[in-house]
Amino acid sequence: MRPVELHNVVISDPFWSKIRNLVKNVLLPYQWRALNDGIDGAEKSFCVHNFKAAARLNARRGRPGFLEPQWSDPGFSVFPGADETPDPDKFYGFVFQDSDLYKWLEAAAYILASERDPELEATCDGAVELIAAAQLPSGYIDTYYILSGMERALTNLRDNHELYCMGHLIEAACAYYEATGKDRLLNVARGFADFVYLELGPSGRPGYPGHEIAEMALARLSELTGDKKYLELAELFIKRRGTEPNYFTAERRKNAALDGKPVPDDTPARLDYYQAAKPVLEQDEAVGHAVRCMYLASGMADVARLTGDEPLRDACDRLWHSAVHEKMYITGGVGGTRDGEAFSCPFDLPSDAAYSETCAAVGLVFFAGRMLRLRPASEYADVMERALFNACLSGMSLDGRSFFYVNPLEAVPELIRRDSRLSHVDTRRQKWFGCACCPPNLARLLANLGSYAYARDDGTLWVNLYVGGSVRQTLGGVPVCLSVRSDIPFSGRVELSLDLPEPASFTLALRVPGWTDPDTPVAVPDGVTYVTRDGYMYISGLWRPGDAVTADFPMPVTLTAASPAVRECVGKASVSRGPVVYCAEEADNGKDLHLLRLDASELSAVEVKSLKISGFDLPSVSVPVKKLRGGGTGLYAPLSPPEEDSFRALLIPYFAWANRAEGEMRVWLRY
Amino acid sequence: MRPVELHNVVISDPFWSKIRNLVKNVLLPYQWRALNDGIDGAEKSFCVHNFKAAARLNARRGRPGFLEPQWSDPGFSVFPGADETPDPDKFYGFVFQDSDLYKWLEAAAYILASERDPELEATCDGAVELIAAAQLPSGYIDTYYILSGMERALTNLRDNHELYCMGHLIEAACAYYEATGKDRLLNVARGFADFVYLELGPSGRPGYPGHEIAEMALARLSELTGDKKYLELAELFIKRRGTEPNYFTAERRKNAALDGKPVPDDTPARLDYYQAAKPVLEQDEAVGHAVRCMYLASGMADVARLTGDEPLRDACDRLWHSAVHEKMYITGGVGGTRDGEAFSCPFDLPSDAAYSETCAAVGLVFFAGRMLRLRPASEYADVMERALFNACLSGMSLDGRSFFYVNPLEAVPELIRRDSRLSHVDTRRQKWFGCACCPPNLARLLANLGSYAYARDDGTLWVNLYVGGSVRQTLGGVPVCLSVRSDIPFSGRVELSLDLPEPASFTLALRVPGWTDPDTPVAVPDGVTYVTRDGYMYISGLWRPGDAVTADFPMPVTLTAASPAVRECVGKASVSRGPVVYCAEEADNGKDLHLLRLDASELSAVEVKSLKISGFDLPSVSVPVKKLRGGGTGLYAPLSPPEEDSFRALLIPYFAWANRAEGEMRVWLRY
Repeated sequence: MRPVELHNVVISDPFWSKIRNLVKNVLLPYQWRALNDGIDGAEKSFCVHNFKAAARLNARRGRPGFLEPQWSDPGFSVFPGADETPDPDKFYGFVFQDSDLYKWLEAAAYILASERDPELEATCDGAVELIAAAQLPSGYIDTYYILSGMERALTNLRDNHELYCMGHLIEAACAYYEATGKDRLLNVARGFADFVYLELGPSGRPGYPGHEIAEMALARLSELTGDKKYLELAELFIKRRGTEPNYFTAERRKNAALDGKPVPDDTPARLDYYQAAKPVLEQDEAVGHAVRCMYLASGMADVARLTGDEPLRDACDRLWHSAVHEKMYITGGVGGTRDGEAFSCPFDLPSDAAYSETCAAVGLVFFAGRMLRLRPASEYADVMERALFNACLSGMSLDGRSFFYVNPLEAVPELIRRDSRLSHVDTRRQKWFGCACCPPNLARLLANLGSYAYARDDGTLWVNLYVGGSVRQTLGGVPVCLSVRSDIPFSGRVELSLDLPEPASFTLALRVPGWTDPDTPVAVPDGVTYVTRDGYMYISGLWRPGDAVTADFPMPVTLTAASPAVRECVGKASVSRGPVVYCAEEADNGKDLHLLRLDASELSAVEVKSLKISGFDLPSVSVPVKKLRGGGTGLYAPLSPPEEDSFRALLIPYFAWANRAEGEMRVWLRY
Repeated sequence: MRPVELHNVVISDPFWSKIRNLVKNVLLPYQWRALNDGIDGAEKSFCVHNFKAAARLNARRGRPGFLEPQWSDPGFSVFPGADETPDPDKFYGFVFQDSDLYKWLEAAAYILASERDPELEATCDGAVELIAAAQLPSGYIDTYYILSGMERALTNLRDNHELYCMGHLIEAACAYYEATGKDRLLNVARGFADFVYLELGPSGRPGYPGHEIAEMALARLSELTGDKKYLELAELFIKRRGTEPNYFTAERRKNAALDGKPVPDDTPARLDYYQAAKPVLEQDEAVGHAVRCMYLASGMADVARLTGDEPLRDACDRLWHSAVHEKMYITGGVGGTRDGEAFSCPFDLPSDAAYSETCAAVGLVFFAGRMLRLRPASEYADVMERALFNACLSGMSLDGRSFFYVNPLEAVPELIRRDSRLSHVDTRRQKWFGCACCPPNLARLLANLGSYAYARDDGTLWVNLYVGGSVRQTLGGVPVCLSVRSDIPFSGRVELSLDLPEPASFTLALRVPGWTDPDTPVAVPDGVTYVTRDGYMYISGLWRPGDAVTADFPMPVTLTAASPAVRECVGKASVSRGPVVYCAEEADNGKDLHLLRLDASELSAVEVKSLKISGFDLPSVSVPVKKLRGGGTGLYAPLSPPEEDSFRALLIPYFAWANRAEGEMRVWLRY
């Protein structure tokens, strides 16, 4: 299974086109201004500033009197004071600030892949030239070190994110090449990757990234260019991780000695943050920083697929099981604890204190998409769809102008404001973050939906997600265009039709969503037959021009329970319909949502109706519930039968919460 | 209402005598060794070390070549490194380390008040001499400043705890004087209080303590000595708190200027930690550090009682309402959040992340006892009894050798070990804390039960807590000895008998416990009659020698619900019997206690039976429950009727948890 080519996919879907247009018309222009420090009232990025400073420095190099900057540690993040005029030649921002420009370029590339936009492309070309101008002749590029003294470059892999930035550079470069055919950025990326190969490749130091992403990026670069050394480097990064002697520990000791400041060794728990406490083949639990863990797992799945490495595939299976079957919120969010933005223990999934970072859900989509390419089973696509429709989309307001970093499953604004244990939770999305990982990461995911919706091999086209639009692919020796109409998330009606110049034999593999009746009848044309395997209908035979496949997947309102092992959720249920998890919001149901109780006997009176929020027509669910009477006689009293009133609750898609007046929200309701 | 004299009370009770003996025979000797750094494997205290160093310094003062120590900030806590030999002339420990010796002396005094123990008294006398030798001629005493440079003494009231130590010194001095008639320590305490009166009294700087306790201590000193200036100082400390310009803010700015290090002003939220964001008469919510808040409220109640200040009494009522009716755990624990060891928002009472510091529950007993003296109503005694039997006693193991600082209502050891959000929670009591506030605080409370059990005015003796033993008091002009037999917490049977030389008229006021039937018949002798008011039976008339009053207060097993406003507890109930809250422990019920569900229909099958834990015979409760079947088909699945098994759960008193093998514990069970 391979991804389809970017430029062969068109999205034209009643739901996703609106999202995609937000990315194109709101997110990308907004983020470009943010990268250029042009947004009033938002924290400054300094991202483009740093590239410009590095480019100027490069231009001066070799002139009389030029002196290389001497190493002086700017620290993990450096921002000028409120009254301070930024030094045009100094680095500002987080150590990983470069990555924001790369993420933006990658997202822009996905937009350009399916529609011409000369203005956007010109902006991108300008950014590419700036990046190229900032690169050192050696191929190295990271403005943090270029501006602060190169002698310490690539010597603090644990903390200083050069390989993370390289990963994002490569992702952007591949995307931009695939979208436009222009190889300028690809050559910059290859230059850096070649430099790193010399430094950290088979003949170099046995390092690996402190924040993963280079693994999957190098695998992609290798697939795109056919150059196996990038795959080799990705594999080294994976296989070295956590082996003894621990590279991060050795590096840390060395830097401490250089600085004359002894530091204690990292504990195994601390190394877990980087997934570096033990070799990946021995890891059987998703631990540490959730984004890092999901990116590592994604890279592992890519390398396992490209090298056929079975033990590595087994390790992917173990991480998948742990992340998805023991540590995933029902929204597809991962990373339950704010401490280290990390995976908590198995089944520890608090609703109010959840971290569930948007980027971690994006990472889970990456991982799920790659597991799917490794072994087509609808479970992976189900999880991908769940994360996409819930924990990812929740990261962005419905007008595309503000963002959540943290995605709780329960929120009470008064409590969040006063309880410092919830200080990481917001109940209003923010315009831009100083540490702006989530907004551009969302952009690059949502702009690239096509590569998750479809996959192919020589004779099969897989439809993993039903997203309206089309995909072109050569199948059975003829150019085939598959058009898709999908009513998800409004209903489960999907229609697929095939345009091809002459009859041809190939296989169309359609996912039967996990949320529907697996025996839903699917109408297929004469001349083809199907078998179902691992949640996919493989429809094979001789296809003719105009052939169509239709299905109306039942999408009832359902109540979901969590495993009894989830302490938080015992005695509770959540409402979902299709891939969408629903929540109750104060705007529709008043305060004290914890008083609501679902009553299965009244589920027959559920109604689905359209509700407009922020310009989106969304399917809402009206459900009769019981509401415990509040107030009463004091803090503690002898137990008496609960006094409940009948109440009709209106539930909205979780992703749409916090788009109206600030208020309470709750996913899990008592049952 | 006034407290009874210490030496007039004897405790002889099947339950409390065992506790008191632990205090006398285990806690006091153990803590004395701890204060003298004589316990292997425990953190060193340096408490006695500091007093010795200060005494030596005093002895050298005036000799040729003597130089006063110049100010050098030791910091909030200073301990020597592992390989470092402590400097015998240097201060070590926390800035409030002196208070531990005072607390120990106070507890010892309560023991000595009712029984002769020449060896213990000699140890105390020696400690008193050491303290006297450490005091400066001016009356000032705080070894932190004496050893580190006096020029900064009393200039960082917010942080540096001199007035806190003074408060504990006064409490110890009053107790030791009342117990032994010896005034040596009382004179030391008066000397310090007189010094502080000059510095911070009506003609001094308008400061007040950063950690309250001086308020109630000064009130006690004033009552004991009849000197009104101590009450005046207590009142100033209370009335100045939180007024503008804020003293702490001004002091902080001044110190910052002296140190040349500008610091930002405290936010109102930060000032809440010290209950100093607004004047106490305007405070209507219990906020900030829970121990501080309870100590302040205790001092306020004392001053309101002694001055008849009605607005201050109203302020006490408001703090009481907030602390007890909106922020108290069912165990009587207060301070729901670890952030600042503080009160959280109203009705925010998480079970697993609870802080509920032992010292804060001790503080609530202080506050309740003082509210009772302000206005006799059984509500105060009910809360006092609740805190005592649950959140306080839980602080100590049943062998008196280890201690909890934090008292959660739910504990899962595996989760606590792995989830850093619960890192403040222990599931095994610790031997001794570097910051050792709780063990000696518990000791001074438990050794002084008598002053909470009884109160008096000229014609009335109140029985607030039924504790076996006797109390002597002159009533109606004759010396009366009231003997009490109480079977609480085993049953509600209480018998009171009166020994008096001749018939006399007075009133015996007996609390009708909140946990029993208010119409329980009480057998009284002929010649007396009673009325019930605010939860007390006032039994008046002509009492004769040998008269007895008996009652058998029904003590059924009851299920208690929390207000629907407590999100944590909706759909849950807790089991109690009399004043004792029960919990389920893994030792009796296996793991996964969250799977248990109470079923009201089966409560008739409840059995109370004796269970021996760590040498204590305790009443346990055996109750049929349902147990949700664990395991199942994955993390999320369509809701189906729960599969439950019948199970007989054994519940033990909450205070007895964590005295057997380490394991899960849970107070609130699903219902």
